[in-house]
Order: sequence, then C-alpha cells, then structure tokens
Amino acid sequence: MAKIVECVPNISEGRNSDIVEACLEPIRQTEGVKLLDYSSDADHNRTVITYAGTPEGCVDAAFGLAQKASELIDLTKHEGGHPRMGAVDVIPFVPVSGVKMDDCAELARTLGARMWEELKVPVFLYEQAASKPTRRNLANVRKGEFEGMAEKMKDAKWAPDFGENAPHPTAGVTAVGARTFLVAYNINLNTDNLKVGKKIVKCIREAKGGLVSIKAMALMLEDRNQVQISMNLTSPFDTPMYRVFELVRLEAARYAVDIVGSEVVGLVPLEALVKSIDYYLRFEGFKSNQIIEMALFGD
Amino acid sequence: MAKIVECVPNISEGRNSDIVEACLEPIRQTEGVKLLDYSSDADHNRTVITYAGTPEGCVDAAFGLAQKASELIDLTKHEGGHPRMGAVDVIPFVPVSGVKMDDCAELARTLGARMWEELKVPVFLYEQAASKPTRRNLANVRKGEFEGMAEKMKDAKWAPDFGENAPHPTAGVTAVGARTFLVAYNINLNTDNLKVGKKIVKCIREAKGGLVSIKAMALMLEDRNQVQISMNLTSPFDTPMYRVFELVRLEAARYAVDIVGSEVVGLVPLEALVKSIDYYLRFEGFKSNQIIEMALFGD
Repeated sequence: MAKIVECVPNISEGRNSDIVEACLEPIRQTEGVKLLDYSSDADHNRTVITYAGTPEGCVDAAFGLAQKASELIDLTKHEGGHPRMGAVDVIPFVPVSGVKMDDCAELARTLGARMWEELKVPVFLYEQAASKPTRRNLANVRKGEFEGMAEKMKDAKWAPDFGENAPHPTAGVTAVGARTFLVAYNINLNTDNLKVGKKIVKCIREAKGGLVSIKAMALMLEDRNQVQISMNLTSPFDTPMYRVFELVRLEAARYAVDIVGSEVVGLVPLEALVKSIDYYLRFEGFKSNQIIEMALFGD
Repeated sequence: MAKIVECVPNISEGRNSDIVEACLEPIRQTEGVKLLDYSSDADHNRTVITYAGTPEGCVDAAFGLAQKASELIDLTKHEGGHPRMGAVDVIPFVPVSGVKMDDCAELARTLGARMWEELKVPVFLYEQAASKPTRRNLANVRKGEFEGMAEKMKDAKWAPDFGENAPHPTAGVTAVGARTFLVAYNINLNTDNLKVGKKIVKCIREAKGGLVSIKAMALMLEDRNQVQISMNLTSPFDTPMYRVFELVRLEAARYAVDIVGSEVVGLVPLEALVKSIDYYLRFEGFKSNQIIEMALFGD
C-alpha cells in the first residue's frame, strides 16, 4: 500500500493573493506531493491549504511553505477574524494510507525541529503529536494569540516543544501536529420536520449515547424542503460511513422517515469507502490493491 | 480521470521461462505501464500476461512484446493443450478508467497496423474491435489454428485486417481486439445443498431471464461445506456487483438461504466498486476524484 499523508496548513494571509501564491509555490515544486485545494477567507485573513503525498514530501513542502510564510507574513501587522499566533498558524499531518498516527506525530517532530533550527520559529506540538495532555487542544495552545504569546511563553509551562521561550518577532509561533482524517458527510431525509432531525442527531451523537467520533447537527435545506443531518466523521476508519448511514436510517424509521441521499463533501480516503463496500457485499479477504488503480499507482 | 487501459496478451510459451521473461521485458521497460500479473501453464504451453497503464504505453508495450515473441517463439515447433495460432496469440485491450470501448478498438487498429508493417505478422481484429460480425468470436477467428491458417487465409473471407493472405512462417497470426473488463466474483451461501445453488444460478443467468452479462455456475466448497455461486461479470460497469449480490440474496431467500460472504478474485476497476457504494449509501453526485488517492494519482 502506498504511504500517503495529507497536510492541511493554515496561513495567516487571506487577502493578498501574491503572498498566498508565493506560499503555495514550494508545495507545487515539491516532488511526491500534490496541491489538492486552497481557500482564502478575506474576513478571517487566512488561507486553508490541502495537499497530500509521500510522508517525506509532505514535510519538505511544509518546511518550504513555512519558510516563505515567515519571510512574507508579518504578524505585527495582521488583523482578521480568526484566532492566530503564527505566519503559518497550524500544520496538521493526517494519515491517509499505509501510515499510522505515530508516523504522523514523528513527521510533526521532524518538521518542528527543522522550523526552529533553520527559521527560528518556535513550535508547539498539538493533538496526537502533543507532548502533554494540556497541549492536545489547539485552542489551549493558541490562547492569547500572537499578541499575548511573548508573555505566555515566559511561563515554563508554555515553553515550546522546539525553540526558546519567545515567539519569532514577526512570524510568531506555529502549532504542528497529527490528527485523524475528517470526512464531511451529510445525510438528507424525506421530511421537512426539523424536530425529527434534531431527535435523530441526539441519538447518534457521541455525547448522547451514539457513535464515538461523530459531530452532527440537523439543519433545513430550504431549497429542497428537506432536513439534513450534517456531520463530521472524525475517525472514518473506525466509524465508517455505512455504520453512520444505517444508524441514521434506523433512528429515522422511528418517525416513518427515510434517507433520500447522502453526500461526501470534499475528499475521502479510499479505505473509508472500502470499509463500507466491504460491509454491504460481505467481502471475504478483500484487499485495496485488488483495485486496479491501486495496483497501478499504489507503490 | 486518469486514462487507464488494461491489456491481457497471451503468448504461446509456457515452459521456457527464459523466453517468457524476455517477452515480459518490454512491458517492464515501457514507461506508463505496469506488469500486474503473469501465469504460465506448461500443459497449455501458454502464458497469460496482465498489465495496465496509459493507452499509448499499452500499445508500445504490446508491440515490444510481439516483437520479442515473434523472434523467440516458433509455432512450427509448438505443442500444447490450448488452441493457438500465433507466437502472441491474442492481445485484448480493456477500458478501465477514462477511456471508452471505441478508444480501445482504435488502440487495437493502431497496434495491428504496426505489427504488420514492422513485424510482418498478419492481424485479425476481434470482439469489440472486429471489422465483421463473424470475427467477433475469437474461436471463429482461431479455428484451424496455426497449422490450418495458411489454407484458411487463402479464402478472401478470412483475409486478415492487416497483412497479406498468409501467416508469418514462424510467428503465425495474432488476434488483436477490445473487450470489457471481466470481474471474477463469487458468492458463498450458508447451505450445503448444491441443488439450491443450481436453482439460483438458473434465475440469475442471462439465458434464463436473469441479468445480462453474467456467467454463473454453482459448485460445492468441500472444505467449507458451503455452496458457491461462481461468476464472471462481463460488464461490471453496467451490471455492478451490488445488483448481482442483491439478486442472489433475493433468490436464495426463497429457500431460506442467506449469503455468507462474497469475494472478488483478482482485479477490479475502482469504478465498479464505486457503483456499489453509490447504491448502498445513496450518494448524491459523488465523483471518483473525491477519493484522495484518485485526486493524487488520477490527475
């Protein structure tokens, strides 16, 4: 199986497209990775970038991006609606295929060490790469933002994982981490009764006795006059789409409501789909490299 | 979507591994294609080769293979249990992704022209590339085999599509064509009653009012004490696996029998799987390039 990692860096620039393009260039130039998407928000003054490829390529491209961003983005002049603490604010590595979470945590440490050594940007490790439980949650790490970071980092408790106890004067600090793939998955129901949708959401949510690693809300699709269960599957390999789909169908049946359709918004790892087809067709011993495209491209 | 073609040449050598390896070498050396499998049968004195890749790469690799085979394999000295008429006996091109059957028929014509021009091996086009209905069926084309071909080709009715009315003295003639992907798909039942299996097979076969493009037989898995419905899906995009699975389930229920599991033997195109997941999860507008591996490799 090919080793594939996804990387979703967020940079603190969403207005000047020249700067955004300059930051994307190292990703475009790095062999073994491919830029899949980027989206700038002028209000947030922030750009979310998605690329993927080999583990080594992902680290190299992230370093190149961090280098450009720390040259071109000056946090002392940055304003925008989204909390931020660095020119590159966050860099999560995400296992897609043939790599484990621990491998991605190791990539985070490799990149963090290099960012401090060569760019003098201090790095906090977060989520699955965090060195302490208090650093798992990005919001905790980023609290105080760029403006409060010099003071915050004087506290030994907030010494960075790589670097000295002070932010880079213009590029701030960066959170580098590892996390699971998020699949944005929506299920549409043949009802216009939002209350039914909300009751279903209660049943399927982790906090209410439902599935672990599901974030869900019910909303009205006004143009279709249908209720949608809008979800993030935060662990789509352990909690595959079929289980979510069938549980929603089961709970909806209680109200004589059925599923009209479902949709994946954005990207999904192949393995997350294969888990569902495996369930429905009761596969015995199916391997992803039996898929001809995977046999061709997968190593 | 990446353009992917599969090619499954059969060469008339299954005993001398040096010759087989020499014939595989052009496939291994051609950029854009990958050797996926090969299997030699000494009794048949024949080797079935599977490779895939870009359309152009598939033609180049097939030509390289035909060149080596016509140098190294002498049909005047060939004996084996399988009917054959050429050093390379058949070369079918198979659409996998992003190409149509017509494109594969065109590849067959390109290769056929080149094999005659550069190797002086006459070529018959067959199956979906056939120039006349009588040439669709490979068995018709090959009838008489190598030994009878000189006589057969004197008849204008059997003039080759490329070349003169006589076989190559040692390399014979080759059938080059285009056909659909075959998926070998088996379904196992929780019964040891072979009669039930045979009744199910009757219901699902094309000839008996079942699904088009299904070839099926029932057999006993002695070690599991279960009946297996063993199938070839000859048009897995039009008649996807889920339809076969659900129809077998439906017919089996008539006998209070259920499906234990199913298995894909060998390779399957991604699109054939996606059609099934699309059905079960009632996808709205899902595209294969939402699969991160396809977004990465599928350009």
